[in-house]
Amino acid sequence: MNSEIALKFRLHLEELISLTDDEFEDIYSYFNLKKLRKHQFLVQEGDSVNHEYWVVEGLLKTYAIEENGKEHILQFGAENWWVSDYEAFFQSEKATINIDCIENSILLGLSLNDRKSLCEKYPKMTIFLLRKSNLGYVALQKRLLSMMKDSVDKRYEDLISYNPDLFQRLPKTLIAAYLGVSRETLSRLGKR
Amino acid sequence: MNSEIALKFRLHLEELISLTDDEFEDIYSYFNLKKLRKHQFLVQEGDSVNHEYWVVEGLLKTYAIEENGKEHILQFGAENWWVSDYEAFFQSEKATINIDCIENSILLGLSLNDRKSLCEKYPKMTIFLLRKSNLGYVALQKRLLSMMKDSVDKRYEDLISYNPDLFQRLPKTLIAAYLGVSRETLSRLGKR
Repeated sequence: MNSEIALKFRLHLEELISLTDDEFEDIYSYFNLKKLRKHQFLVQEGDSVNHEYWVVEGLLKTYAIEENGKEHILQFGAENWWVSDYEAFFQSEKATINIDCIENSILLGLSLNDRKSLCEKYPKMTIFLLRKSNLGYVALQKRLLSMMKDSVDKRYEDLISYNPDLFQRLPKTLIAAYLGVSRETLSRLGKR
Repeated sequence: MNSEIALKFRLHLEELISLTDDEFEDIYSYFNLKKLRKHQFLVQEGDSVNHEYWVVEGLLKTYAIEENGKEHILQFGAENWWVSDYEAFFQSEKATINIDCIENSILLGLSLNDRKSLCEKYPKMTIFLLRKSNLGYVALQKRLLSMMKDSVDKRYEDLISYNPDLFQRLPKTLIAAYLGVSRETLSRLGKR
């Protein structure tokens, strides 16, 4: 067991639930370590998606590609976020989106079967995952509403003020793709 | 206990979990019946949101209003769906969206505190709510991706083919608002 990663993960779980040493050790044994380099894929369109992942360190992007090649960024995933193609994962379908690494990344993966066993064995893990799922839903609802009703200026300002660290780490091209604007429009926004 | 509504709700729960009569009776006692007429509000912007609701019968719409008065429909809620302003509900904040009734509606409400008690008492209810939350997340991800990358024609066709009943029940004005197009554009789509 890599003690530094285990400790980080335990702190993450214990933000919401309390665990004994034995419980944590057992829970941790359900997860598999995965390391990817910048530009490598975690999920590619058409893949089976058997795992969801907790981001130990690194930065990833979740996106769909239009037939004409245009990239639409659904969301980013940095430290402490959970990422997967959840549609494919929960419904055992093929991936319709891609997830790749913007930085070298270290992840902890949990398979759908292990997730079910874990929930049956530890009701508090179900409570943890429910809380995480609820928060994920809220984040997605915010993103959808903001796409529908906010101006690009407002969405740009929100990205800077709510995610200043992420904003610093992201290449400008990806910020533009996330906001759905051209690189030129983004430069104009940045100058204000 | 209204036996017809209780039976409907039990069937809904038992799609995912098994319950004894005593368990169901106890679980059902956490829920409050709410009846609303067409045009009445379940949630209004600025309200405290203390409940989530299961739709027994009826049809509701969840939407945000821009400063200029323009309505953006996040989603509809018909029989067997769960609705709330989940951002406000989970984070005990004021509502930023509205939910009102397109048809007379009957709902079963569950408060945040009762939800917590229920999850502690019945781990299988946590499993039920986790599964529902996961599916809700998937539906929202689909809606967001479709908004980002699909043409209006494609989104119109998907609405008809995936939700034929809903399509029949919705006034054309609301279908147009859901797709983010004018009433004229919608007529043009309908003629193809």
